[in-house]
Amino acid sequence: MTKVAVIGASGRMGSTACRALDAADGLDLVARLGRGDDVGTLASAGVEVAVELTRPDVVMANLRSCIEQGVSVVTGTSGFTPERLDEVRGWLAGAPGVCVLVVPNFSVGAVLLMRFAAQAARFYESVEIVELHHPGKADAPSGTARRTAELVAAARAEAGVPAAPDATVDSLDGARGATVEGVPVHAVRLRGLVASQEVLLGSPGETLTLRHDSLDREGFMPGLLLAVRRVRETPGLTVGLEAYLDLP
Amino acid sequence: MTKVAVIGASGRMGSTACRALDAADGLDLVARLGRGDDVGTLASAGVEVAVELTRPDVVMANLRSCIEQGVSVVTGTSGFTPERLDEVRGWLAGAPGVCVLVVPNFSVGAVLLMRFAAQAARFYESVEIVELHHPGKADAPSGTARRTAELVAAARAEAGVPAAPDATVDSLDGARGATVEGVPVHAVRLRGLVASQEVLLGSPGETLTLRHDSLDREGFMPGLLLAVRRVRETPGLTVGLEAYLDLP
Amino acid sequence: MTKVAVIGASGRMGSTACRALDAADGLDLVARLGRGDDVGTLASAGVEVAVELTRPDVVMANLRSCIEQGVSVVTGTSGFTPERLDEVRGWLAGAPGVCVLVVPNFSVGAVLLMRFAAQAARFYESVEIVELHHPGKADAPSGTARRTAELVAAARAEAGVPAAPDATVDSLDGARGATVEGVPVHAVRLRGLVASQEVLLGSPGETLTLRHDSLDREGFMPGLLLAVRRVRETPGLTVGLEAYLDLP
Amino acid sequence: MTKVAVIGASGRMGSTACRALDAADGLDLVARLGRGDDVGTLASAGVEVAVELTRPDVVMANLRSCIEQGVSVVTGTSGFTPERLDEVRGWLAGAPGVCVLVVPNFSVGAVLLMRFAAQAARFYESVEIVELHHPGKADAPSGTARRTAELVAAARAEAGVPAAPDATVDSLDGARGATVEGVPVHAVRLRGLVASQEVLLGSPGETLTLRHDSLDREGFMPGLLLAVRRVRETPGLTVGLEAYLDLP
Repeated sequence: MTKVAVIGASGRMGSTACRALDAADGLDLVARLGRGDDVGTLASAGVEVAVELTRPDVVMANLRSCIEQGVSVVTGTSGFTPERLDEVRGWLAGAPGVCVLVVPNFSVGAVLLMRFAAQAARFYESVEIVELHHPGKADAPSGTARRTAELVAAARAEAGVPAAPDATVDSLDGARGATVEGVPVHAVRLRGLVASQEVLLGSPGETLTLRHDSLDREGFMPGLLLAVRRVRETPGLTVGLEAYLDLP
Repeated sequence: MTKVAVIGASGRMGSTACRALDAADGLDLVARLGRGDDVGTLASAGVEVAVELTRPDVVMANLRSCIEQGVSVVTGTSGFTPERLDEVRGWLAGAPGVCVLVVPNFSVGAVLLMRFAAQAARFYESVEIVELHHPGKADAPSGTARRTAELVAAARAEAGVPAAPDATVDSLDGARGATVEGVPVHAVRLRGLVASQEVLLGSPGETLTLRHDSLDREGFMPGLLLAVRRVRETPGLTVGLEAYLDLP
Repeated sequence: MTKVAVIGASGRMGSTACRALDAADGLDLVARLGRGDDVGTLASAGVEVAVELTRPDVVMANLRSCIEQGVSVVTGTSGFTPERLDEVRGWLAGAPGVCVLVVPNFSVGAVLLMRFAAQAARFYESVEIVELHHPGKADAPSGTARRTAELVAAARAEAGVPAAPDATVDSLDGARGATVEGVPVHAVRLRGLVASQEVLLGSPGETLTLRHDSLDREGFMPGLLLAVRRVRETPGLTVGLEAYLDLP
Repeated sequence: MTKVAVIGASGRMGSTACRALDAADGLDLVARLGRGDDVGTLASAGVEVAVELTRPDVVMANLRSCIEQGVSVVTGTSGFTPERLDEVRGWLAGAPGVCVLVVPNFSVGAVLLMRFAAQAARFYESVEIVELHHPGKADAPSGTARRTAELVAAARAEAGVPAAPDATVDSLDGARGATVEGVPVHAVRLRGLVASQEVLLGSPGETLTLRHDSLDREGFMPGLLLAVRRVRETPGLTVGLEAYLDLP
């Protein structure tokens, strides 16, 4: 049994994670830390993996403490800039064997969708992204849609695919969406939706559509459990679930 | 048998119409006019209904000639401004019994979609439109999408529905689409598509999606035949197929 | 303020209804009855409308009691056979002014979808239904899908539409779905879905797709509140929300 | 310039292929063979690759002749049983350097869809397939849907994924589709469609949908040209385009 702690256990994602960890085979949830609880005692409590689900303003302190104690970490907190990742790498340099996995998106489906979109992108003349979210979302397009567009654009650039055809000459402002590295991205905000993303690829005579729908935080639990189970396979810093999906 | 002529018979829409009229029960295609042919002889040839499928620069002369001859007309040519419609009404005032039907869209499905969207719009907090076309299209959004947005907006205004919720504060330019009378409209241009339109409506806990896909000009023929069969029921000027769909 | 009671207030649908009624303008939730509570005291408590959300084995007794007390009822309980409806009509015959509304589906979207499908059905050669639900559902296809197929079939029969074309000669058992009054119905059962229904209509060159997605019981609340607000407009028995949607 | 011949050049697929080969850089279409033309003269005409697009009753004779002449072949003709493939392997054993590529599906999108579905299948509790075709199709489900189901089933078996959950106890015959190696497959036949396939995968809280739409034979040309360009990289017999898509 792997001994696990959740830091940020009283948040919405944290409490869902606690339920999933409680129900998971082979994992023993031994500590649930909320605001004000001391992260510095995890090692002494025998914790082997900490699941860090807090906020950008506290995540770095939590990571540093875990690394110093020799506790591996899976974190889903946002806000990891290249500078922050470098800082974490620095701490890990002095802690051989400690593993940190930064997960921008725990949804296995979202990771698969990005991967498939990038693989398919060079076979099609046109690629566009439509992301659809609840109307309470602050940013448009979503971070996942931007990331998908970047991956798609990189794959097309590498394969030398020319720009997608577009004869539009008479357009209302905004009609053709935002452009992320040359890929049009459209953001729909609709009550009744949670989080969906569609990548549309087209060539003469055929189209390929890849769509991911998230219904609730339950959808993140398979990815979170996978991360907890496998984080200690790779010492040092890893970014993204993809390395652990064993895809060809 | 109703005697029918096609004006613009050698164009792409015209030649498809000729094939459909040839195959239709109860209709007798007696004249196919191309560029340079004389429209003024239709009545003497016994033509009862002319199908006018030409260009904005010649349609008005064709309509005037038909009306003067007492020949009813179905036209699918674009470019009918309110001023043009008034001019046609003026000609018809002096030609009792002559019927002119101006059809912005021969697709029965497109007409149904607009109608259903307008009927459903007041029951939902959010409405957005995504239209998807081949990349050779010059305008974005499509005329049908704009018209749909106008109908949706009018229905919501009449029912007193407040603006759709949208918490976006951080947006890439264009991400949230164009706004037509308050309704976000997104235009996708993708090789491999012909012409599609999707209206998405959402309220807490449910969404309704209405989608129309056009594959080719065949999809316009049922509406065109319906128009030819029924145009003479309504003397004067009629705009749109909807009046002949016998909807409740 | 209309005084309202919920019978079955501790069930999942009932508790959602209580929250919605508590938050609704113009409605005053004065009684929440659970198992064992006495339905016979509603009138003396001033209740004007009872929302009955229980089970087929108790609904009839509850309806009878409400009618005898002169309390109007909205019920979403299932199991109303023609015989049961006749029995309710009999009770109402002796209670002038009392109104009972039996609602097979509180989802406004589901009602709109059925209506639109029936209206569109006669314009298309082909119609099929795909319903998609969570894998815990016991019946396939869903009651809503069957009802939709029946409405579609009736509309096509009335319009004299021939059977949909189908050249299938070599088929795996079940591949072409179940047939409800001549309409193929396919039932998908998928973890991660709640309840969706898609009606596909096709003619040469075009297709029309109508889709409804239910995410949770919140989606039933607008229909339930509408029912409570308007049930007393129509004395006697009414079946279905449609009468109150003010559609043309 | 690679010298290419088309065998079956007057068929629908063959004539589309001729147009595509004529327009393609680096390929020189030097021979178009129809019924009655002599396949035995291809080598003497300098043909390096033959594109064989005929019928199951003549394809084997054509392959044998090409192999004997030392001409490599890409064939899209159907009906290759394991026995036929073995026979071709036998002929190739005596013709070192000759390459034969048997392509069950020239659509790159269909090949990608199958691959992605198989890769994703082990991450989801539920998988179902909906294929949608024009109503003139004789078999249900389609060969591509069957093959997709087999690949999905094999991937799940290898990963030890249990059977998808399904609580259906009360079902109309056919409602739950056909079962191909444990995967439910639903076949929709709808006028206005050409050929589409959708793979739906679901787990708690999320679904992934992969969809491919074919509009016309143009959609096969990128795969056909790719095959012609690369067939001579791999001496002997190869089945399927996938080997040439350079996927990871």
